[in-house]
Amino acid sequence: MRDLDSIFDPKSIAVIGASREPGKIGHVITKNFLDGGFAGRVYPINPKAPDVLGLKCYPSVMDVPSNIDSAVVAVHADLVPGVLKECGEKGINGVVVISGGFAEVGNYALEQQLVDVAKKYDLNVIGPNCLGVLNPAARNDSIFLPIYKMGRPKVGDISFISQSGAVGGCIIDLAARAGIGMGKFVSYGNASVVDEVDLLKYLADDDKTRVIVAYLEGVKRGREFLKVAKEITRHKPIIVLKAGRSKEGAKAARSHTGSLAGSYDVYHAAFKQAHIIEANRLNELFDFSKMLDYPTCSTGGRIAIITNGGGTGVLAVDSVEDNGLELAKFSESTERELRKILPDYANATNPLDLVGDADANRYEQALDLVMRDPGVDIVVVIVLFQTVAIDSRIVNVIVKAREKGRKPVAVISTGGEYTEFHRRIMDSYGIPTYSSPSDALLAVSKFVEYCKK
Amino acid sequence: MRDLDSIFDPKSIAVIGASREPGKIGHVITKNFLDGGFAGRVYPINPKAPDVLGLKCYPSVMDVPSNIDSAVVAVHADLVPGVLKECGEKGINGVVVISGGFAEVGNYALEQQLVDVAKKYDLNVIGPNCLGVLNPAARNDSIFLPIYKMGRPKVGDISFISQSGAVGGCIIDLAARAGIGMGKFVSYGNASVVDEVDLLKYLADDDKTRVIVAYLEGVKRGREFLKVAKEITRHKPIIVLKAGRSKEGAKAARSHTGSLAGSYDVYHAAFKQAHIIEANRLNELFDFSKMLDYPTCSTGGRIAIITNGGGTGVLAVDSVEDNGLELAKFSESTERELRKILPDYANATNPLDLVGDADANRYEQALDLVMRDPGVDIVVVIVLFQTVAIDSRIVNVIVKAREKGRKPVAVISTGGEYTEFHRRIMDSYGIPTYSSPSDALLAVSKFVEYCKK
Repeated sequence: MRDLDSIFDPKSIAVIGASREPGKIGHVITKNFLDGGFAGRVYPINPKAPDVLGLKCYPSVMDVPSNIDSAVVAVHADLVPGVLKECGEKGINGVVVISGGFAEVGNYALEQQLVDVAKKYDLNVIGPNCLGVLNPAARNDSIFLPIYKMGRPKVGDISFISQSGAVGGCIIDLAARAGIGMGKFVSYGNASVVDEVDLLKYLADDDKTRVIVAYLEGVKRGREFLKVAKEITRHKPIIVLKAGRSKEGAKAARSHTGSLAGSYDVYHAAFKQAHIIEANRLNELFDFSKMLDYPTCSTGGRIAIITNGGGTGVLAVDSVEDNGLELAKFSESTERELRKILPDYANATNPLDLVGDADANRYEQALDLVMRDPGVDIVVVIVLFQTVAIDSRIVNVIVKAREKGRKPVAVISTGGEYTEFHRRIMDSYGIPTYSSPSDALLAVSKFVEYCKK
Repeated sequence: MRDLDSIFDPKSIAVIGASREPGKIGHVITKNFLDGGFAGRVYPINPKAPDVLGLKCYPSVMDVPSNIDSAVVAVHADLVPGVLKECGEKGINGVVVISGGFAEVGNYALEQQLVDVAKKYDLNVIGPNCLGVLNPAARNDSIFLPIYKMGRPKVGDISFISQSGAVGGCIIDLAARAGIGMGKFVSYGNASVVDEVDLLKYLADDDKTRVIVAYLEGVKRGREFLKVAKEITRHKPIIVLKAGRSKEGAKAARSHTGSLAGSYDVYHAAFKQAHIIEANRLNELFDFSKMLDYPTCSTGGRIAIITNGGGTGVLAVDSVEDNGLELAKFSESTERELRKILPDYANATNPLDLVGDADANRYEQALDLVMRDPGVDIVVVIVLFQTVAIDSRIVNVIVKAREKGRKPVAVISTGGEYTEFHRRIMDSYGIPTYSSPSDALLAVSKFVEYCKK
């Protein structure tokens, strides 16, 4: 197995192509390491600059007096093989090649040169033609996109691999916005040296990664991928969005990353066999992964729904059935106890409508009772923040109920700014939230499916 | 046809149950009329208060010296029939009964009393048990939910009717957040007097409404509904989210608004026959309605895709095929002209990848060429705002292209805060934006389907 620690968690890093000019990629990357609080040493490499952003700059990695773990390369494609050779000579283990201009534009010979150098020096090369690596825990950020345009997520344990840089950028940005914690992220571009199989193996062994999410256009070593994935999904879920499913989409993928997308039917069957969870839409990568990141599993699919809005409760029940789940039946004692805390006109049955004036206290009492019902496997809590009675206290109630109840909880909250704010807080706490019943119950069904496998 | 003008666009309004106490519904509603800048007269009605929020208060509508168009009622359920009688005597035409405590809690006799009074005085009663009415153009806002928890949308021409108050609140809040303009909104609760058929008829005739969106649990006059809808969809699209589709969901709907949800298969067939566009998820109500609000129609489904991210382009192509649309083939002259503006290594074919360093100028030139290609019916523009080269100028470019090109344009932008900000601006301009390719192309397919009918 490739040791990619120096890629994801380097103690020292060289930025090859570091620049003094604010617009340049080599400038942005150097700045991100400094601004991001990277704890290791940063060595700018550029034969034409004496220093970059206050750091001493070296003409080549060969001139740096200390050892270097890892390098990020952002120089013209033609210079890349030479630069890699120097990295090899220097004893650098991992290199991220941001530079494009290889196989993806038909420059196969140059890409082969890169591969040959990597092989000769046993270099772990990510890319070329990629967006870089992000490891929030290590404050390792070689992504060259500006922070004001693309947020950086907090530390978490969902790790992402993306063949496409564009999709990768969207993934980081969406995760940051939604309050979803990220383990490791890598956009691996042309995958000329380190490919998806290597990355899967590494993340399988990484104890900071609990869920693996992948955007794939094509897989190079199909048989190996299947074998490795099958092994991994025994203990860690893998979620995949496969692009290029359609005939025209496969053609577009070919001209994009040069990947042979292959027949989708074959992929689909293989994914199923390996217990890989397939996403059909970009947002499902998050919808599924945050549910699958849940610390406990549930092999049962009996769902309790608690709501302060009847209509949303009805929609949720429809989604329970749509997704092959089952509406739990409350026990007689649960119903009896519920009746004590509910207004006269409310029903103590599932879906449990706490009605529009329900406050955090009523939710707390109801959650406590429903959590203890042996006929309930998973609790889906609908909280509509528009009502007068609901405020931030509900967040605490749900966090506590989840910790006490030891049954998985998912939250549905539909709305604008005030709602989004509270959803983000809950997601940051590790409580998966959804904006619609259909999204939530689909994710819950994938969770149950994975737990059952 | 019922004349509901006084409900949606009253010149004067009585708030029956107006209160001096900040927490009370009757207070919030009065305050919303004042704060919202309602141009007509507001008459607080409360026998126990001399004035409310600086306005002279009357014991009964009978005591108000001038004519009153409309009333909002927020008093205890038992008092509602008496209050309605006074409204009838006063010659008020439309009344919105917010108060709950009728059929939805088993109080059928009281609801029948309400119906009898309405019939006797020919009163147009919305509700009871409803959230109220919102007409941004008239600054008429009887929704009692606090503004900091639920935003109010800008003026537009998509009108919404919702049986559920909770779902209605979410709809208003989501529309406000997304920059979607709203024509009229009504949450009609128990529909004891004015029902969905009346509302459809009214909105059909309303020249401020271009698209009608409905959240339905059950329909009372099925045959009439079908007949009316069939007539309307000839000139205005109707989008419906039907809740209570599943067996358990239908049961939940029954205990919620007392509606007989009936067999979903029957509904589904009827919707199809009436050319009603069915949404399966809450968000689709917006996804579909903003596309269907497009000022021009397109009976062709040949889609051009322009992107600055290859991966997202591939996903979009998959979605074109998933949704029964067709990837347009650019003409030779379009391809020739495109090659002049593209970098060497970029392909001038559809999906058109302008590559990661594309700026607003490159988009402008490409849009101009693609819009003029006779083989293209609809242009889907993917703009990933994470890249260094993209900034707010792109919004202007798309607005101009849309106006000049006279072909429908939809935008896909996936991302966090910076992206959301720009999406909101575009949606406010009437350019439908989507966060994922699958959402966008599904909406486009509904648009083409409606245009073809």
